[in-house]
Amino acid sequence: MANNDFKKEMNKEETVQISHERLRKFTFDALREVGAPERDAEQIAECLIDSDLRGVYSHGIMRLPIYIHHCRKQGPGSINPKPNIQVVKEGPSYAHIDGDNGIGHLVSIKAMENAMDKAKKTGMAFSSVFNSNHNGAEAYFAHMAAEKNMIGYCVTVGGRNIIAPTGGLTPMLGNNPFAYAMPAGKEYPIVLDMACSVVARGWILMAIKNNWKVPDGWAVDKDGNPTNDAQEAYDGLVLPIGGYKGYALTFISAVLGGVLSGAAIGNEVTDLYQDFDRSQNVGHFMWALDIETIMPVSEFKMRMDRLIQEMRTSRMMKDVDRIYVPGEKEFITKEANLKNGVPVSLGVLKELNSMSSLKLDF
Amino acid sequence: MANNDFKKEMNKEETVQISHERLRKFTFDALREVGAPERDAEQIAECLIDSDLRGVYSHGIMRLPIYIHHCRKQGPGSINPKPNIQVVKEGPSYAHIDGDNGIGHLVSIKAMENAMDKAKKTGMAFSSVFNSNHNGAEAYFAHMAAEKNMIGYCVTVGGRNIIAPTGGLTPMLGNNPFAYAMPAGKEYPIVLDMACSVVARGWILMAIKNNWKVPDGWAVDKDGNPTNDAQEAYDGLVLPIGGYKGYALTFISAVLGGVLSGAAIGNEVTDLYQDFDRSQNVGHFMWALDIETIMPVSEFKMRMDRLIQEMRTSRMMKDVDRIYVPGEKEFITKEANLKNGVPVSLGVLKELNSMSSLKLDF
Repeated sequence: MANNDFKKEMNKEETVQISHERLRKFTFDALREVGAPERDAEQIAECLIDSDLRGVYSHGIMRLPIYIHHCRKQGPGSINPKPNIQVVKEGPSYAHIDGDNGIGHLVSIKAMENAMDKAKKTGMAFSSVFNSNHNGAEAYFAHMAAEKNMIGYCVTVGGRNIIAPTGGLTPMLGNNPFAYAMPAGKEYPIVLDMACSVVARGWILMAIKNNWKVPDGWAVDKDGNPTNDAQEAYDGLVLPIGGYKGYALTFISAVLGGVLSGAAIGNEVTDLYQDFDRSQNVGHFMWALDIETIMPVSEFKMRMDRLIQEMRTSRMMKDVDRIYVPGEKEFITKEANLKNGVPVSLGVLKELNSMSSLKLDF
Repeated sequence: MANNDFKKEMNKEETVQISHERLRKFTFDALREVGAPERDAEQIAECLIDSDLRGVYSHGIMRLPIYIHHCRKQGPGSINPKPNIQVVKEGPSYAHIDGDNGIGHLVSIKAMENAMDKAKKTGMAFSSVFNSNHNGAEAYFAHMAAEKNMIGYCVTVGGRNIIAPTGGLTPMLGNNPFAYAMPAGKEYPIVLDMACSVVARGWILMAIKNNWKVPDGWAVDKDGNPTNDAQEAYDGLVLPIGGYKGYALTFISAVLGGVLSGAAIGNEVTDLYQDFDRSQNVGHFMWALDIETIMPVSEFKMRMDRLIQEMRTSRMMKDVDRIYVPGEKEFITKEANLKNGVPVSLGVLKELNSMSSLKLDF
């Protein structure tokens, strides 16, 4: 897997190990400094550092400087550090939610909680969210449902258009990542968190920050030529998985997260790193489903364990020594990072330490 | 696109054009002959021939002989042509449905109707289905929702395990196709119907029937070597899209359609073409979401049209003369096939005419 090679590459780069408590405290302090209420800052920090713990470094503390930058701005392009997140319309199994231009992680947590509360009563419910911002890794919100014996789904739209329609050269759709999570018994929950592109754009951003090449097959430049240059890839087109299937998937995600909610779609979508004069109006869509309505949770979990364990009995390819199930590697990484600290690249560390007067000592 | 080349290949093969009315009548008669009630036979025929009209020949009348064969059988491996489809448990936004071993198309139509009725009241609802059978193309059921100004989703599990976990060589998961559909205004509805494999196995089956080679990148043989031989591909492994992403997607689909409903999962999954002595116990999962709860339908449709039309303004690659949106090609094909008749390959025609005393004259 190109992605795994890239992660190995990262592991060879110079990093420092910092405890998750220290990273969380630093994030909390930085958010408090720009005016976030205590409970909000806690929830956002928890969510961000969870990505780092799970080894999804592209969506962890690395993103903090840009959020802080947006929060510090005044006027229409700023992010609101003290949002009044409101349900503008709701019924038994739905809620339409105005994120009040808050940090996307916070908005998404509130929206998922709303969907879960309703699903507990009706069996299934969704939240359709507009006027939000970048919300990091979708896995966190889907996993909230899995922790409560539900199945969770979450998709987000926007952040920058990077995918062209099949046959086209103009980036018109985001990679619009989505996540599913469902609980298991003795095994880790199953968690899928994927972008519709071959890789999440965060990895390319990390390659730029660290001056790395990107592997073959990830991207083409703006004229459609294959490239290994991270900046050219960032300025060009990330390729969707499975060709027209990935294009179709990301289009569907744009409808679920953007068209339905009233959030930015198509050419209204902004770039988190380049648009500072208009609000991002990022949309999310999420649903929760209460397992107990269909099957005793214990039976569901037993069936999950059985399916998971069966995967491990597969004959293996040469040079493969074990089979993993979706999300498993991230849970294993989380256990290691909880114990050993989170590896933070020197490039990211430098940026964190020049972001404000706060210093990330370790 | 390999898939498109393959379709072009098919267009070069010898086919006869048969009117959709004739195909529907033949299908109806064949189902009536094995004991299906009139209304059920109508609905199944409508669903099957819709696939042929949309150009998805791999899931149309080509499949009729195997369904008829299963319906004719007696005992545990047979399909029940007169199922008593029952809701075994339900609440405001959910239903657990026993398909009574009926033909999957019929079971799925009933289950989607149930989800749509509930969604109209609560905003969103799902059906979890067990004890069903192969249900053809998922697009039909998702599209039922789009026709009623809803967003629809449908996934099915089973039919035969063909995908190995990443790093593995044992086929342990089906390609578990899923579909989304949502209405537009002046434009066709958006419909995504995809398998988690690079191509639907139906195309490989059609290649066997017609003695065609399969393109590079579709499949490996049972030892993991790339192959262009259709039979080797059928006996080996179809590759998932995006590597581990496709594996994860199909695993999630197995949970939604199989683990939750109580249907066959993992090594319980049967092969429609080889298992005649045990019931298939195919599972489905579908949900419907009422757009009107969030946004006036007219506004939603206007936003859909805008996003669709924007795609067509993309710069195009060399040799590309227009951009399509998901499902559009199938609607265009449907208009042509409604007018000119459906192309049926001579191999499929021969099989249909030797299936029973019925003759497909044209």
